[in-house]
Amino acid sequence: MVFDFDAPTNRLNTDSIRWDTFDQDKVLPLWVADMDFQSPPCVINALSKRIQEGIYGYTHGPSHFNQVIAQYLLDQYEWKVEPDWIVILPSVVSGLYTAVQQLTKTDEAVLIPNPVYHHLRLACTSSGRQFQEMRLELKDGRWILPSNELTSLVTNKTKLALFCNPQNPGSTVFTREELQTFGNFCLKNDLWICSDEIHAGLVLDESKKHIPLASISKEISEKTITLMSLNKTFNFPGIGLAWAVAENPLLRKAIQVGLHQTIAAPSLLAYTATMAAIEEGDPWRQELIQYLRGNRDLIHEKINAIKGLSIGKMEGSYLAWIDCTQLGHQNPYQALLDAGLATSPGNQFNRDQFVRLNFGTQRKRVNQALDIFQKAFT
Amino acid sequence: MVFDFDAPTNRLNTDSIRWDTFDQDKVLPLWVADMDFQSPPCVINALSKRIQEGIYGYTHGPSHFNQVIAQYLLDQYEWKVEPDWIVILPSVVSGLYTAVQQLTKTDEAVLIPNPVYHHLRLACTSSGRQFQEMRLELKDGRWILPSNELTSLVTNKTKLALFCNPQNPGSTVFTREELQTFGNFCLKNDLWICSDEIHAGLVLDESKKHIPLASISKEISEKTITLMSLNKTFNFPGIGLAWAVAENPLLRKAIQVGLHQTIAAPSLLAYTATMAAIEEGDPWRQELIQYLRGNRDLIHEKINAIKGLSIGKMEGSYLAWIDCTQLGHQNPYQALLDAGLATSPGNQFNRDQFVRLNFGTQRKRVNQALDIFQKAFT
Repeated sequence: MVFDFDAPTNRLNTDSIRWDTFDQDKVLPLWVADMDFQSPPCVINALSKRIQEGIYGYTHGPSHFNQVIAQYLLDQYEWKVEPDWIVILPSVVSGLYTAVQQLTKTDEAVLIPNPVYHHLRLACTSSGRQFQEMRLELKDGRWILPSNELTSLVTNKTKLALFCNPQNPGSTVFTREELQTFGNFCLKNDLWICSDEIHAGLVLDESKKHIPLASISKEISEKTITLMSLNKTFNFPGIGLAWAVAENPLLRKAIQVGLHQTIAAPSLLAYTATMAAIEEGDPWRQELIQYLRGNRDLIHEKINAIKGLSIGKMEGSYLAWIDCTQLGHQNPYQALLDAGLATSPGNQFNRDQFVRLNFGTQRKRVNQALDIFQKAFT
Repeated sequence: MVFDFDAPTNRLNTDSIRWDTFDQDKVLPLWVADMDFQSPPCVINALSKRIQEGIYGYTHGPSHFNQVIAQYLLDQYEWKVEPDWIVILPSVVSGLYTAVQQLTKTDEAVLIPNPVYHHLRLACTSSGRQFQEMRLELKDGRWILPSNELTSLVTNKTKLALFCNPQNPGSTVFTREELQTFGNFCLKNDLWICSDEIHAGLVLDESKKHIPLASISKEISEKTITLMSLNKTFNFPGIGLAWAVAENPLLRKAIQVGLHQTIAAPSLLAYTATMAAIEEGDPWRQELIQYLRGNRDLIHEKINAIKGLSIGKMEGSYLAWIDCTQLGHQNPYQALLDAGLATSPGNQFNRDQFVRLNFGTQRKRVNQALDIFQKAFT
């Protein structure tokens, strides 16, 4: 390994939301989804160099930025997109809220997965949209969509399906067949699709690769806005940007509403970081994935060995979705917090008896977290 | 002088909108409103230090950030605001569009100054709001509001007045009396006010100081959202942030709509830059103002010496608003461009026979620009 992910890092006094919310002497905070690793040296160096230039005026995206992204999508996912299908956004979350507001009217409804991270739900509730939940089921250790039951959720008001792949939480990296089935369901019911694929660069399962939903067929692509970003993979959500891909000009127009008006352009450093990650970041990413696999294996073994806890396969991301149902505990999140570990509570994802553990951290901290699980629940 | 504003800077290959739009061998680009100076060393150093920390995760504002801003407003403008009146925004433009959308309904109307920079107009037209123009008049070399004619612009649909102080373009730093008159007019007609004060830190006139409109009286403060930012003064619009001040909780709520939803939070480096500028930037700012005064004096003398051109006092900002009416030229902007100087065309501000010249640049370039004026129009 060229990069040392075991190297201790200290995020005290960096205004980290994850590290500043709890008393750092008492609680190990493995909740908010960023990592405790430095970004790759190529990113840090590119940012340093840009800072040293000293002038931070009004800046356009780097020349050929959309072409660079299109090439990246082709290289990484064998996904052929035209540069002009790409719209640069300040964040994936910004794109999600815009998609819901623009692709549905006030009295229309949205399908969202359950469990799912809170912004997919909030994007609906904040704009007064009804939503129905596509309740994922555990099958062979994977959280998958209940293909037979989806149709019953659709009414004549349902216009949009939000999707998340790799799934957060649950870590599912959906297969081509699963994507085809879901895409066909959306086509059949004439639903727009907004697919959050922010964890695409973090597929951990050796037998899987990320397949963009819109890459399945031209018909699905015509109905889909895909949201992507390197913020998660290269750990710069505090300075990054995102992009939407939409083959359909109507969808492209929808996702641009408010841009450069209420919605400010990304910081010029977001371009710097993203370009550096695309151009030079992959060796670091490969090693990151190896390291995260080690964390994943440890968590899989130790969590499943605790009576009352279970966890499925962790195919992607650094977020472990731990089922505490069999514990019969009223509030497993609070029990862990009392024992010194902050996880993300399951109710944030509409599943009370779960917790989400962020393992984008040093192995030593993962071991500490697992010791706290042991202490709290055995 | 500690800081050398004459030091040549080169913005080629930095993706500068201002420098990349025209052929750099043929056109001196003094249009888009950023400066050709490096940000102060305190800002560059703070950014470098933060970059070296290497982890750019989800970040909250610095502790006591609102208190720091409140203290800054007290120190700089003798304006006493409560920290919780302050709302952090990604940009002033974001705040302007939000204010128009939230403080008026679709069939209601907005007052805006004329001339005024394009976003004030676009904030109305993009959301389908009618607007009436408060046509500024030149009096004793200053562009001021026509106090007697404002009332005739108000209908029962008029709900909001946009204001810009120091004015862009036109450079007026409004006096206490002028602010009182305008504020009373708005109160009398029950108008909300959104006051763009982004150039507050760049008062050039030795006899003037910036007075926030909302500081005039509690009654005016209760009706006003003030938008501010250090992006212009310290020259980091590509990485900065803005803030709104609103004493009235209703206005505070309005300006927060969409924040952290469609509207992404500022980059963590925006906090770093803004904090450094507040804490250590003032000596640099003082010298910047001295330097800009030199540019201003040169422009005032040379432009008024060209037959057919005239320019008023330049009380604030680094934007010279040059009247070409007496030239009798069909398109003075194009004539200058053909002669090798890009200015901002007057029609961008709804006054065709003007150009706006950005003098936030090295003296040498100001002299070059003045030579081109000479060449084009004499």
